[in-house]
Amino acid sequence: MSLVLREVGPRDGLQAESPVDVGERVRLIAALVAAGLSDIEAVAFVSPRAVPSMAGATEVMAAVERAPGVRYWALVPNVRGAEMAVAAEVDGLSVTVSASAAYNEKNVHISIDESVDAVDGIAKVADGALPIDAVVSCAFGSPYEGDIAVATVRSLARRLLDAGATSLTFADTTGMATPPRITALLDSVGTDVGLHLHETRGTGLVNAFAAWEAGVRRFDTSVGGLGGSPFAEGAAGNLATEQLVYLLDELGVPTGVDLARLLEVCRLAEAMVGHPLPSAVARAGPRLSG
Amino acid sequence: MSLVLREVGPRDGLQAESPVDVGERVRLIAALVAAGLSDIEAVAFVSPRAVPSMAGATEVMAAVERAPGVRYWALVPNVRGAEMAVAAEVDGLSVTVSASAAYNEKNVHISIDESVDAVDGIAKVADGALPIDAVVSCAFGSPYEGDIAVATVRSLARRLLDAGATSLTFADTTGMATPPRITALLDSVGTDVGLHLHETRGTGLVNAFAAWEAGVRRFDTSVGGLGGSPFAEGAAGNLATEQLVYLLDELGVPTGVDLARLLEVCRLAEAMVGHPLPSAVARAGPRLSG
Repeated sequence: MSLVLREVGPRDGLQAESPVDVGERVRLIAALVAAGLSDIEAVAFVSPRAVPSMAGATEVMAAVERAPGVRYWALVPNVRGAEMAVAAEVDGLSVTVSASAAYNEKNVHISIDESVDAVDGIAKVADGALPIDAVVSCAFGSPYEGDIAVATVRSLARRLLDAGATSLTFADTTGMATPPRITALLDSVGTDVGLHLHETRGTGLVNAFAAWEAGVRRFDTSVGGLGGSPFAEGAAGNLATEQLVYLLDELGVPTGVDLARLLEVCRLAEAMVGHPLPSAVARAGPRLSG
Repeated sequence: MSLVLREVGPRDGLQAESPVDVGERVRLIAALVAAGLSDIEAVAFVSPRAVPSMAGATEVMAAVERAPGVRYWALVPNVRGAEMAVAAEVDGLSVTVSASAAYNEKNVHISIDESVDAVDGIAKVADGALPIDAVVSCAFGSPYEGDIAVATVRSLARRLLDAGATSLTFADTTGMATPPRITALLDSVGTDVGLHLHETRGTGLVNAFAAWEAGVRRFDTSVGGLGGSPFAEGAAGNLATEQLVYLLDELGVPTGVDLARLLEVCRLAEAMVGHPLPSAVARAGPRLSG
């Protein structure tokens, strides 16, 4: 398996912020591609009433100049979103289903069964022409139910593949993953999966390292750690892309990403959202920048 | 080797802050001991003109109620400091020598040779009655010379043991350690060493994890991540004690530390220094606190 870093800043990151202009979002996506990222979760085709920051997905995708070899992903919650995403000519669909029944119901107001049905509908829209990545949220625990058993997560993963998902990503939505919990899940579901890690408890990078050592080669990350609570309320967002790139650089793993350029994108993202982002590498620079 | 977490918040942490009253410092030390920490770097016997925050070391040690089985460490830079520390009845001496010649000269205004001589003098004062931990600062790189060769670090370590140090700690003063650099050093000096890690680049915890996996069982940590720049300028301080305790708890490693009580000490430390501390676990709480 070759390494895939999927940049989720333009979608999962900006979703948590006050709305940013379509033009700025396009500029952010282009800058990320210019820094070397080959997979970008660029937009979400969701209700603009429910998620105002994600309004204008069609406009963003129309304005993005497509770079060769780059896959532009869209989050889609349902058939209607998938149809819009296909019409906007995205390169992949991601769809989130929670391993926590309570979380699923509180956040998307439908049951897990209904979410699995949605994946089935989305797969029919994609009709084999697009990859469908099923993101299992709360895979390492729920704010409502606490621990989620590995068997429960695996069972849901199996159902999502049966429903038409072509790959799986396990999301530590609540920042409850730790290295032994990562290993326990991988022992059950294998390592040909993606991980979407958070820094809620400062464990995003150590979890990524443990997963890397175990053989995982797909990670969702967000430039600057964009996403989750703003900086003032703590570094609780996504694992920062530059933190993982820095670690992989140090491990001698080719990432295709130019860290210096990526750190410039951090500054761009900070200017866009109007507050500092919680990334230590972005502040301190890499170990030897000279 | 059994696990030793040496809490350096009262010394290395508070050193970087505006002076805190002797009584408050005693209270912090007592709270850390009550949370289960058995090794505390409590004071530094240094010039109060050079380091105003560390004034009153004798008074702190006189006021601390000694708990059985707890070792109270003092940082000493020279023979005079060692004499004062012995008079104050500390349980161990730590002495810092930089692997970076430029850093040593800029920070303590003497050469590495003179620092090694100081260790020799300190050892004569201790006269075998107290452990002397030599802390090699800039062990993973210097802001002046960049990389420091492992052979240079090992050679200095050897000289420090010859001069009378009874143990070694390698400090990532500049936050330039990464897992492969940790492993490279350990391959050279062995794993019966301490590590003193920083979060300057967000790699403190992943470095500790890599070191733990390699067999290291001694770590310097600081409650709340106290030390280094204040929070507003970024999470650049010491590896937070509660981050490592949380990780070790999750790994099933007995630490003797009660994480919930330790998090209360974080709040106490924050109140003492008057600003938030950069610890994600302190903000978010452990994974399952219920």
